[in-house]
Amino acid sequence: MLRAVLFDLDDTLFSSTRLTRKARWEACEAMLHAGLPAHSVKEAYLRLQDIVHRTGSNDARHFNRLCESYGLKSPEIIVAGRIAYHNAKFALLYPFPKTEESLLALSKAGLKLGIVTNGLVEKQWEKILRLKLRHFFDTVVISGSARPKDKRPLLRRALRELHVPAREAAYVGDKLKTDIAAANSLGMVSVRFIPPGDAQKPGKGEKPAHTIRSLAELASLLPTRTRER
Amino acid sequence: MLRAVLFDLDDTLFSSTRLTRKARWEACEAMLHAGLPAHSVKEAYLRLQDIVHRTGSNDARHFNRLCESYGLKSPEIIVAGRIAYHNAKFALLYPFPKTEESLLALSKAGLKLGIVTNGLVEKQWEKILRLKLRHFFDTVVISGSARPKDKRPLLRRALRELHVPAREAAYVGDKLKTDIAAANSLGMVSVRFIPPGDAQKPGKGEKPAHTIRSLAELASLLPTRTRER
Repeated sequence: MLRAVLFDLDDTLFSSTRLTRKARWEACEAMLHAGLPAHSVKEAYLRLQDIVHRTGSNDARHFNRLCESYGLKSPEIIVAGRIAYHNAKFALLYPFPKTEESLLALSKAGLKLGIVTNGLVEKQWEKILRLKLRHFFDTVVISGSARPKDKRPLLRRALRELHVPAREAAYVGDKLKTDIAAANSLGMVSVRFIPPGDAQKPGKGEKPAHTIRSLAELASLLPTRTRER
Repeated sequence: MLRAVLFDLDDTLFSSTRLTRKARWEACEAMLHAGLPAHSVKEAYLRLQDIVHRTGSNDARHFNRLCESYGLKSPEIIVAGRIAYHNAKFALLYPFPKTEESLLALSKAGLKLGIVTNGLVEKQWEKILRLKLRHFFDTVVISGSARPKDKRPLLRRALRELHVPAREAAYVGDKLKTDIAAANSLGMVSVRFIPPGDAQKPGKGEKPAHTIRSLAELASLLPTRTRER
């Protein structure tokens, strides 16, 4: 009997990848308009991606570094990029289609819901609150680290808070290595959500119990108390 | 003959005081809704004001401190405050009435325009760009410090950049002690802008050459090349 469903946040409840890509592109475009001497938006974008990969996605000085890589120290250009990035981010920070409907259906079926996510605490809370999904969740567990961490201790903590054993809970996430492997290893029902454009191939221990492309598939997939009565 | 007009930014081109007050109130309201155990929004707001006065307006952890002052460490409450603050800030960050019209009239009259402001460089640039006033100004000089600094070196730098001597330039600002005194001391034409609710009394050396309550008064007040031809 399933009693709880836990969710990953980025690329499971909203398209983090798409948001970041589009917001960074907007930022580069604004920086060129403000005077960044790049040959094209694409050139600046690729250089920015390179900077992000080298310094990590939570570094606060990506646009400063991009500007400096062109031999400039211009707060005007940097701030133009940051404003465009944030405007795009706020405009694009909405849940995947059918997310609210699916979470509501699971709640109505009597399931407890939770979020278990890697990331910086205040940054992840900002996403949850801006997505306006907070009210659905009985627990929110955030690693507090910018680097991906083993999710098993986080999942255990969420299950403890919900008073639900691992075998009576599902974990829905997009990453095979971190999400699916962790859920399998704890004996939870693993559900792989495939966001658009995703092309991961499962390795050992990373085979999900279920695979979905929309959260709308969850309600019919997972056996709930309501339906078993 | 007047050739340049320099402007202070906060409380001269937009109502910084009103924006901050309203945004902090919104933040407190959101924090109460998110679970801050304050008796009233007003109580939390007064406590926040006290924290801001003690730690300085550029401290990034005001909401953390407010939350902690109630014995709580809740990222959810802190982030709820921060989101409400930023939403209010972006909604309220627009110029005083008639600002664009007045800047355009001065530009058409052949005057060079500049901004000379105290504050952190990227923070001040963000205001200028979000206000969409950047195109009016031939120079922007920012102190780069969170504390109020003597504006004379900043004014001199702006005048140098514009190649205009002090006696052929005006400085428009709201603060008697920093703006008007500095302009007088350099031999510039000092223009005091009185934002709504302001109640400063001029001390020695702080008597402005002109006093205005709207930037719309500037064009008729200042003798320009155009009108002298």
